[in-house]
Amino acid sequence: MKIGFIGIGVMGESMARHLLEGGHALTVYNRTRQKAERLLAQGAAWADGPGACARNQDAVFTIVGFPKDVEQVYLGPEGILENARPGALIVDMTTTSPRLWQNIAAQARQRGLRPLDAPVSGGDSGARNATLSIMVGGDEADFQACLPLFELMGRNVTHTGGPGSGQHTKMANQIAVAGTVASVAEAVRYGEACGLDAGRMLACISAGAAGSWQMSNNGPKMVSGDYAPGFYIKHFIKDMLIAVEEAQGHGAELAVLKTVLGMYEDLQQKGQGDLGTQALIEHYR
Amino acid sequence: MKIGFIGIGVMGESMARHLLEGGHALTVYNRTRQKAERLLAQGAAWADGPGACARNQDAVFTIVGFPKDVEQVYLGPEGILENARPGALIVDMTTTSPRLWQNIAAQARQRGLRPLDAPVSGGDSGARNATLSIMVGGDEADFQACLPLFELMGRNVTHTGGPGSGQHTKMANQIAVAGTVASVAEAVRYGEACGLDAGRMLACISAGAAGSWQMSNNGPKMVSGDYAPGFYIKHFIKDMLIAVEEAQGHGAELAVLKTVLGMYEDLQQKGQGDLGTQALIEHYR
Repeated sequence: MKIGFIGIGVMGESMARHLLEGGHALTVYNRTRQKAERLLAQGAAWADGPGACARNQDAVFTIVGFPKDVEQVYLGPEGILENARPGALIVDMTTTSPRLWQNIAAQARQRGLRPLDAPVSGGDSGARNATLSIMVGGDEADFQACLPLFELMGRNVTHTGGPGSGQHTKMANQIAVAGTVASVAEAVRYGEACGLDAGRMLACISAGAAGSWQMSNNGPKMVSGDYAPGFYIKHFIKDMLIAVEEAQGHGAELAVLKTVLGMYEDLQQKGQGDLGTQALIEHYR
Repeated sequence: MKIGFIGIGVMGESMARHLLEGGHALTVYNRTRQKAERLLAQGAAWADGPGACARNQDAVFTIVGFPKDVEQVYLGPEGILENARPGALIVDMTTTSPRLWQNIAAQARQRGLRPLDAPVSGGDSGARNATLSIMVGGDEADFQACLPLFELMGRNVTHTGGPGSGQHTKMANQIAVAGTVASVAEAVRYGEACGLDAGRMLACISAGAAGSWQMSNNGPKMVSGDYAPGFYIKHFIKDMLIAVEEAQGHGAELAVLKTVLGMYEDLQQKGQGDLGTQALIEHYR
């Protein structure tokens, strides 16, 4: 297939490469061209903007930064909606606002485009190793049409429902992560305050009802003070802000999420937004 | 060995039975004698109080309800400390106050007793199947002396440090559970509010960074409204109250724990203390 790919960051580069290596004709665009050089050397074509990248493609993928970036590449002048050909799949893999995407998807369908929201989890290593989990909202037929492409990039590909449901599922994921990472930080802080060997304590409780991915993966990093980012605090804040807004818009009051967001905002104000999410333990220390 | 066992509740009965079936001479005491009948029929002896149950034993185990019960069976008139013979292991497997136990342990050592705090996790089924996790605080030599008995009751037996460290480790466990179960409830509530199929959503996110024992085990029960108790809300509140008190005493401020405790207290005031902890979702609905 002829594919456009917009957003060649750490994750986007790996994801686009899997499509290229899957035998597809790839055209890429990124604000900073330099980040695309390796893909261009491998045979990808360059386009000079989102619109140019979307023109005459069978499918257009995006993975950019903030909701405002999504809005601009889709709805802006020289954007995807104005330039993609009718019948094209347009697939946003950014974690972004469900409401924004539902708005974009409605406009896209009026133009005969086939919109899918498909945020991912699994991070840099998941993108590199094609083991991402991909949560896909949109029409069943469009999901099926795009599935072979998703399967080049990830392992657990789930059709979650209609437009926006992929984003909502990702938000539910981030909500669960927020409370869980805080619970691990509180257990570690408690153990340290009470004079426990916190590493031994975590090893002891990880296998039971207190266990979580966050405990197994971020708990030991909290104990050792290793704050190298697997997932940036600044990006997590972006996601939690969307989740809080969506939750309120749907009448759900999520007290733990708000509490944890406040802690991370404190850390960011102290200049720690570029640390990994496990640095939440610093809030407690 | 000659063993006294005090507290024949749902968990205590199974744990005592493993000791009996391990070939030990078992004497039991419980406030309600009826609950001990099955063990007596299997060959256990009956004692008419904690002191009588502790007298002339090589080891005395307790698993009772609240800190005040622990205090009474150990320090009360006709209690364990006055009646156990010097050299005996005295082992409290109740989840109770670390500070209270450190006080009891200090008095016990002055009398030549060998105190261990050994709270468990794994619940009724862990007790029945001898798969409990056991977190043991106390002297290394006493831990080693008691290990063959623990291994009749559980699978993961950890020496966590000095007196009280078993209780502190259990508190850290409950702190981690509190934030995690709330994070699952918030994800489920969010998903329901946004029109997701919450069961499908949980299945989709469980395998990744949002995953936890609580999500896999209590998440589906929240979705289906199955509130049958695996672990009672009223018992969880008891544990969290101890954890909050200990945390404050050690200068640790645990905001999520306090928030979650408040939610459960609300549920208890509405008469729902006998439901399982997964009923937290009702707070959000």
